[in-house]
Amino acid sequence: LNKTEIERLYEALKKRAEGAARDLKGQETGDKLRNLYVGCRGFLQTLEIRELTSLIPRKSYFVFADGDRTSRPVNASLYSDSLSSETVQAVLNCAVSAMAPSTITAAIYTIAMSYCCANDILKRGDQKTPGTFFELLIGHLVSSALGVNPTTQITAPTLDLNITLPTDFVFDLGADKSRVHLPIKTSTRERVVQVWAHQRVLDGMHGVARFKGVLVVMAETNKQEKAETVTEVCLPNQWTAYQMYIAQMFRVYYLDLPEPYSRLKDRYPFIQVKQFGDFFFEIDKIERSGLVG
Amino acid sequence: LNKTEIERLYEALKKRAEGAARDLKGQETGDKLRNLYVGCRGFLQTLEIRELTSLIPRKSYFVFADGDRTSRPVNASLYSDSLSSETVQAVLNCAVSAMAPSTITAAIYTIAMSYCCANDILKRGDQKTPGTFFELLIGHLVSSALGVNPTTQITAPTLDLNITLPTDFVFDLGADKSRVHLPIKTSTRERVVQVWAHQRVLDGMHGVARFKGVLVVMAETNKQEKAETVTEVCLPNQWTAYQMYIAQMFRVYYLDLPEPYSRLKDRYPFIQVKQFGDFFFEIDKIERSGLVG
Repeated sequence: LNKTEIERLYEALKKRAEGAARDLKGQETGDKLRNLYVGCRGFLQTLEIRELTSLIPRKSYFVFADGDRTSRPVNASLYSDSLSSETVQAVLNCAVSAMAPSTITAAIYTIAMSYCCANDILKRGDQKTPGTFFELLIGHLVSSALGVNPTTQITAPTLDLNITLPTDFVFDLGADKSRVHLPIKTSTRERVVQVWAHQRVLDGMHGVARFKGVLVVMAETNKQEKAETVTEVCLPNQWTAYQMYIAQMFRVYYLDLPEPYSRLKDRYPFIQVKQFGDFFFEIDKIERSGLVG
Repeated sequence: LNKTEIERLYEALKKRAEGAARDLKGQETGDKLRNLYVGCRGFLQTLEIRELTSLIPRKSYFVFADGDRTSRPVNASLYSDSLSSETVQAVLNCAVSAMAPSTITAAIYTIAMSYCCANDILKRGDQKTPGTFFELLIGHLVSSALGVNPTTQITAPTLDLNITLPTDFVFDLGADKSRVHLPIKTSTRERVVQVWAHQRVLDGMHGVARFKGVLVVMAETNKQEKAETVTEVCLPNQWTAYQMYIAQMFRVYYLDLPEPYSRLKDRYPFIQVKQFGDFFFEIDKIERSGLVG
C-alpha cells in the first residue's frame, strides 16, 4: 500500500469514530482499525529493519528504515510481523478472556506500532496523527470493554457560573458505578503533570474518586539518531510527588512498560503501573464505585 | 549587527546568568541584557514593518519582515523604537519607582520583543531560545527587585525518601517571609495547567501558600500566516477551574495583557491578573508571609 491508500484508511477510521456516527466502541470502528493495520503491515514488510543499540536493560529495539528515513524504536519482543488474523480480530473485538495479558499487550503494541511506524516513514515530523490514531485505538478498546462511548467535555455548575471544560475521554457508566477519566499518550515526559492536574480538577468538581483516573501510554523510548541508540526517559520520583500531592490516578497502563515505573506499585504511594493487557481482567475494579482502593 | 554577533551577545548573557557566576540579579547580567537589546534593535531597524489585521478589540499589531520571513506579532502601542538609554538602564536596574506601571511594562515589552523578533527572523522555527531569553530577562528583573537569586530545584523530605524536583525559579526570601514560585512563559495556551499543578505540589509539600505563585507571561497572540491576521487565545473559564480546584496563584502578570484575563480579577475566584509594571509596586504584598490575600 502506498501513502495515499494508508491516508485514506486513516481518514475512514477517523470519520467513523469522530464523525456523525461517533461510535468509537462499535464493530465498524474495529473493522476500520483492522483495515488500517493490515495496510500498514503490508507497507512495513517492504522496508529494511535496522537493529538499535539498546541502553535499556533487558529490552532490544529496532527501527524500520527506508534510506535515511527511520521509524520510532520498536520493542523486538513485543512486535510481531506474523499476528494471525484471528488474534487481530479477537483483540479489536475485546474477545480476549482466553488470552494471557502479555499476549494481548503484544498484539495491541503491534497494531499501534504498525501505523505509527508507517507514518514516521511516510510523513516526516508529523507527531499529531500518531497521537490521534493511538487515542482512537485505545479509546475503541476501552469503550468496547466498558460498553459505553466516551465524551470529551465536562460541565460543572458552580455558585457563579457553569464551567465547561474540554477533557480527555470520560465515561459515564451509570449512577451506581465509577466514572472513568482516560488520558491516552504515546509518551509522557515532562507534560505528564497535566494528567494528575486534570484528575485533581475532576476530584474538586465532582468529589474525590467520583472519576477513576486511568492513564494509558504506549512507551517512553527515546532514540538518539546519530548514535543509533535507544533509551527510556522515566521520572519516577516526580510521579511519586504528583500522586502524593496533586491527585490519585487509579491505574497507569503501558504497552511497552518501563521497569522504573513498574516498580512504583511496590512502594508508597503504590501507583499501580501495569501492562495494558491487565486492563481487561480488572474492569470490575475500575467500574466499582467508591474511593481509591 | 548580524546573526553571529547577536548569537555571541546571547551566549554572553546565558553564560553570566547560568554559568559559574550564576548571578541572575547582578548588574553585570543587566549589562549583558542591555547589550543584547541594543544589538537586536539595530538589526530590527534594518527590516520592513508590515501591519497585521488585528482581530483583537482595541489592539493593533505589526510584524518585522525580511522577504518572506516574518516575526511574531508586535503590539504597536507597547513597542517603542526610540526607548531612551536612560529608560533601558533604569528598567534593567529596577530603578523604576518614579515611572508609571504602564511605562515600565512598555519598556520591558520592547526589550523582550526585540530579541524574540530578531531571533524569529534569523532562526526560523526556533521556539526554545526566545523562551530561555524571556526567562532570563524576567528572572533578572524579579531577582533584582527581591534582592535574591533563585534556584531551580526543590527538595522535600517524606517519610520514605527525599524527593528532589526540578522547578521553575523559586526564591527563598528568609524564614519570616514568603517564598516565591515564579513560572515564566512567552505564552500559555493549553499547557498552563502545569503552573497550577506545580503550585499544588509546593502547597502539598510545604504547606498552603508557603510559596506564593507568581506567573509572568509575555502575550497570548496567535498569528494566522496566510490571512495576515492576529488573534488572542484565552481560556478564562479553564483558569477559573484551575484556581478553584487545583491551587491558588497569587499573581499573574502580562507584558501584553489580554482583556479576557484582566477581567478575572473582578469575579470569583478573583485571579489577580495585571500588567507586569504593577509588580514593582506590590513587592511587599508578595514578600509578606501568610495565606493568600
